[in-house]
Amino acid sequence: MNFDILILNGKLLTMDSHGTQFKNGAVAIKGKKIVALGAADDFSSRNVSRIIDARGGIIMPGLINTHTHAAMTCFRGLADDLPLMTWLNDYIFPAEAKLDYNKVYCGALLACAEMIISGTTCFCDMYLFEDAVASAAKHAGMRAVVGEVLYDFPSPNYGPIENGFAYTEMLIEKWKNDSLITIAVEPHSPYLCSPDLLKRASFLADKNNIPLVIHVSETEIEVRTSIEKHGVTPVGFLANLDVLSSNLLACHCVALTDEDISLLQRFDVKVSHNPESNMKLASGIAQIPKLLKAGVCVGLGTDGCSSNNDLDIFLEMDTAAKLHKVNTFDPTVMAANTVLKMCTIDGAKSLGLDDTIGSLEPGKRADIIIIDTHKPHLTPMYNPISHLVYAVKGSDVATSIINGKIVMENGRLLTLKVEDIIEDVKIIAEEIRGAKLG
Amino acid sequence: MNFDILILNGKLLTMDSHGTQFKNGAVAIKGKKIVALGAADDFSSRNVSRIIDARGGIIMPGLINTHTHAAMTCFRGLADDLPLMTWLNDYIFPAEAKLDYNKVYCGALLACAEMIISGTTCFCDMYLFEDAVASAAKHAGMRAVVGEVLYDFPSPNYGPIENGFAYTEMLIEKWKNDSLITIAVEPHSPYLCSPDLLKRASFLADKNNIPLVIHVSETEIEVRTSIEKHGVTPVGFLANLDVLSSNLLACHCVALTDEDISLLQRFDVKVSHNPESNMKLASGIAQIPKLLKAGVCVGLGTDGCSSNNDLDIFLEMDTAAKLHKVNTFDPTVMAANTVLKMCTIDGAKSLGLDDTIGSLEPGKRADIIIIDTHKPHLTPMYNPISHLVYAVKGSDVATSIINGKIVMENGRLLTLKVEDIIEDVKIIAEEIRGAKLG
Repeated sequence: MNFDILILNGKLLTMDSHGTQFKNGAVAIKGKKIVALGAADDFSSRNVSRIIDARGGIIMPGLINTHTHAAMTCFRGLADDLPLMTWLNDYIFPAEAKLDYNKVYCGALLACAEMIISGTTCFCDMYLFEDAVASAAKHAGMRAVVGEVLYDFPSPNYGPIENGFAYTEMLIEKWKNDSLITIAVEPHSPYLCSPDLLKRASFLADKNNIPLVIHVSETEIEVRTSIEKHGVTPVGFLANLDVLSSNLLACHCVALTDEDISLLQRFDVKVSHNPESNMKLASGIAQIPKLLKAGVCVGLGTDGCSSNNDLDIFLEMDTAAKLHKVNTFDPTVMAANTVLKMCTIDGAKSLGLDDTIGSLEPGKRADIIIIDTHKPHLTPMYNPISHLVYAVKGSDVATSIINGKIVMENGRLLTLKVEDIIEDVKIIAEEIRGAKLG
Repeated sequence: MNFDILILNGKLLTMDSHGTQFKNGAVAIKGKKIVALGAADDFSSRNVSRIIDARGGIIMPGLINTHTHAAMTCFRGLADDLPLMTWLNDYIFPAEAKLDYNKVYCGALLACAEMIISGTTCFCDMYLFEDAVASAAKHAGMRAVVGEVLYDFPSPNYGPIENGFAYTEMLIEKWKNDSLITIAVEPHSPYLCSPDLLKRASFLADKNNIPLVIHVSETEIEVRTSIEKHGVTPVGFLANLDVLSSNLLACHCVALTDEDISLLQRFDVKVSHNPESNMKLASGIAQIPKLLKAGVCVGLGTDGCSSNNDLDIFLEMDTAAKLHKVNTFDPTVMAANTVLKMCTIDGAKSLGLDDTIGSLEPGKRADIIIIDTHKPHLTPMYNPISHLVYAVKGSDVATSIINGKIVMENGRLLTLKVEDIIEDVKIIAEEIRGAKLG
């Protein structure tokens, strides 16, 4: 059999359901797909167009970021260490009012560059001008689930909500046959969306068999307000509207009741855990060990760059693993393998893409990263999974393949001109800095 | 005036008491010292032996790691996600029983490589065979405060405690005129040291005017046990022994009472905060905002590699800033500048070295790092201090100067042969792996 690409000479972590590993493994790619993998000795390099030497590093599935607002790279470090409402009202909202298609495109390209460099191969985005985000991801060669944010008040992109649905339907139609881009329906949150909006969004997602993505219970205040206004928690509110379902991705879920957790479990709702953003904004600590114990599928997300301030999923794994240990006074919770699953196969499940990505298996798309472990901070290596969660950083990713295409090789981006992107976003930042903020 | 080195063309953060910054700054070095700094326009490159172009990056003091066990790099990732006592008794103690001078030397050299690469220029170490650590730091060209760990039971290095004091006095004598190495007296903790040992250690430190370093109140269990045994908290126990003083560095301080905090404040005791280790071991969250409010000087430390699992102080800053926000539900605590001070001038104060290092000022030693900010994840840059805490990683450090000597330039270590060090520690790891552990 001839292959387009053969990756050799690395510890191969498949992240399949058996946790299969090969000490010296190989992965063969043809077109967009993985066609074979196993022990390197079983592969011949004859009839292979391209051989990639992993040089003793780790070969693994590309990481999945289940919640971000990519174009917020434009606001990275614009405002930190502020009370939530000052941050939002005096900095973020005025800055966002200055956004347009082009700024979102540039910001999203910058995010794609940062994500590819740091090992992410697929992200789920919620923001404005999402056609720009889809186009940027496509240009970068990244896999993405994108959806225009929907809420009751007028959007800087589409204006009134009626147009928001039309815009989402346009996105669904435009990108329906794309092999990298999946469109999602993305109502902002129970507190910014009317019951009617939420039901309609849910219907649209179901009809097209695509993900429904929403922020839920990010803070205690949100939950208290929901109880005062509706008599139920945000999760209960969504349950009453028949919006809970297995295609729903609920982001944050910081402040859940036990009843909320059983609702999420019963309806197979997926959760995106965003620990660094929740910490930086002082929102609270999501009860992830409890959710996992209940059998809820949890992925990890960085959230946007203005509340993190980077998109490095390796660091998010490290934080997630440590935060819940100290929060529960139990060093055995959130073990490295559990956390690694969140960013691979469980991340894929969260986005309804587990038939396609999330593990290395024949027939799946070739979304693969190679970690260079020949570095002081990764020496020695008793256990590669421990290293991936507790020691590897995004800057250790050497090579990235998405959909069978090499997008980064030995740290060099092949799909993007980093210099141009940096210059473009610097110009946008000058404009934002010049605006009356804060 | 002629200079040995002139650093030009970067945002200069001096971290002096006025927070002086220069948008386009320059630092001039002669011998081991900074002799001038200011706006780049005021400097001529005539009569300069060596010009370093910061290329628009950040020029700042090298970072200070106030608590680590450098040679534990040998155990990085050996055992994670375990109950504390299983981790210690089944993995760490048996592994430590296999240590000798040579293994500690190799492990410490690896730590020095990792620390220099990630922007640390000075560390405070507590471990066994500390003469090996001092020698490794000296070889690496790193500044270090090192002290042999002292406790009541026999040490794999010196045997009975009597010899521990003799060993410490030997270290003091041997390294007394060294311009990089400072010896400290380092009793392990109130629970592993008799009152007599503690008083004697304190006397020895005072007599030589050197730091006294100790683990204190790392867990609630330690505090409860102390109260049961002695009727007072560990801090109270040290107070009763007259051991609290301004040259004492108390590491961890996770479980403090309000009374403990006022004792630390009254005696000007310094604290080393180790958030990632405390999280990973599920020890608890130190009340750092409270300590700062009381006026206690706090530095940051990574602790050893087996409970972190890296030595990257940039990531420790990010974690420290975020952890206390979520723990107090207040996003304004631990603002970026406060955290950055912990790893620069306050770190230096913690080690009694603030006359020498911790800020860039004429007359101080030239311990300087340059950050390469021309990267996607550091674009745009509204505020360099925000970036240093929330976005920069150790891998963004381009150049490091310690004691006036360039030890890393454009990511290349000049004092250490990384390949050899990695190979040496891999061999040590094979031996440790082969031992009966776990």
